[in-house]
Amino acid sequence: MAQAESNPGNVYTLESVRKGLVRQEDTIVYGLIDRARFPLNSHTYEENYSKIPGFCGSLVEFVVQNTEAVQAKAGRYQNPEENAFFPEHFPLSIVPSYPFTQILHPGAASININKSIWKKYFDELLPILVASGGDGNYAQTAASDLSLLQAISRRIHYGKFVAEVKFRESPQDYEPLIRAKDREGLMKLLTFESVEEMVRKRVEKKAMVFGQDVGLNGDDEKKVKRKFDPSVASRSYQKWIIPLTKEVQVEYLLRRLD
Amino acid sequence: MAQAESNPGNVYTLESVRKGLVRQEDTIVYGLIDRARFPLNSHTYEENYSKIPGFCGSLVEFVVQNTEAVQAKAGRYQNPEENAFFPEHFPLSIVPSYPFTQILHPGAASININKSIWKKYFDELLPILVASGGDGNYAQTAASDLSLLQAISRRIHYGKFVAEVKFRESPQDYEPLIRAKDREGLMKLLTFESVEEMVRKRVEKKAMVFGQDVGLNGDDEKKVKRKFDPSVASRSYQKWIIPLTKEVQVEYLLRRLD
Repeated sequence: MAQAESNPGNVYTLESVRKGLVRQEDTIVYGLIDRARFPLNSHTYEENYSKIPGFCGSLVEFVVQNTEAVQAKAGRYQNPEENAFFPEHFPLSIVPSYPFTQILHPGAASININKSIWKKYFDELLPILVASGGDGNYAQTAASDLSLLQAISRRIHYGKFVAEVKFRESPQDYEPLIRAKDREGLMKLLTFESVEEMVRKRVEKKAMVFGQDVGLNGDDEKKVKRKFDPSVASRSYQKWIIPLTKEVQVEYLLRRLD
Repeated sequence: MAQAESNPGNVYTLESVRKGLVRQEDTIVYGLIDRARFPLNSHTYEENYSKIPGFCGSLVEFVVQNTEAVQAKAGRYQNPEENAFFPEHFPLSIVPSYPFTQILHPGAASININKSIWKKYFDELLPILVASGGDGNYAQTAASDLSLLQAISRRIHYGKFVAEVKFRESPQDYEPLIRAKDREGLMKLLTFESVEEMVRKRVEKKAMVFGQDVGLNGDDEKKVKRKFDPSVASRSYQKWIIPLTKEVQVEYLLRRLD
């Protein structure tokens, strides 16, 4: 039987939240591999490539906005772990509401840094992840972008849950800094260099293991071909995925006593 | 730099088609892992769970139909390697047409066995892949179903290309059987037990490697936790993915001389 990603009963503890983050690394690595199946396919990102009646934007914006709208109707954003890239003009969910555990302070709902994630993804990640050129699979490329963006966004906004469980463990450490609106102090309290180092190393190892070519004879072990450069995963974690997660944590904590 | 899945220039040879099939195994395995993140979430598949105005069907049908429609507009089905699950009432592509290599006989367009794939997926694959229960992530579950269904469908319909390159290699072997409409003879000519055995073993190995839990210390090598049972992948290949691929090949060949 499979091992479910979400914690059964939606119980959030330091332990379960940590496990959630570790499991989400895997999803991000699989997403990187999936996107690297396609070359850059730059037409996907050009404003004027497709003439979409009643729509102003690139093909990836068209696919992401419209797919998010379908998933919103199907209830995706009822889960407080999910944050949309284009939440404006969202259709309402058409499914009965599900009793997701509500442990977050209501201020959490106003935190959505997907605009920053979107920019980092296209400016910093794609250029080092994929081969140049095009193969015409623009819709598939955009769908792959969406899945990967969603996995990264989920990981980064999971910072809300991380911050909440940390706050509950030792409110006395956080309250003075929150009242003083001391961003730097909060950032310092949330930062553990050795843990971040471990995460980066683990992510790179996952990228190596999951991204290898597997064959039946032992040859592939000798001259291993890879689906993408494993350091792309660890560098992305170091440069912006971990920093943005901490930014979400600080934003959340600053609202925690409102 | 990444290794693109599609063959550059869309050249189809026995070698490139074989490589395509091998690479598609990886995508299917990643898709199995992705779906196994969620428990069954049976509400996703119940006709009457969601009350969708103007739509009659389950949530997964709603998500698949509407997401396919978005991707159709974005040009997904211009690529002859892609086949939709709900091609009826499809919106037209709004992107300029791309010069995909057209090596298939025009009869290929009428071959779409996604109805069989859909049934096998829900009746045979899901029950052995995922844990029981529900976690409320129905939209995410349906999106994951769609990605995996698309990967499996692509693999199975790739049989059209396999059949075409095989036919071109030795038309003299195929033509008499095609003219005689000899399905059994064609199936026999296309079947190589030892190759199928190798594919099943390789898929199971991929499921073991890609589905393992990876940590930084050596502990995980000793008591390896897995994201799903690797034999689910090989059994699915044996029971229906390989047979349906051959069915597509036979259907294609039967139209090849029209």
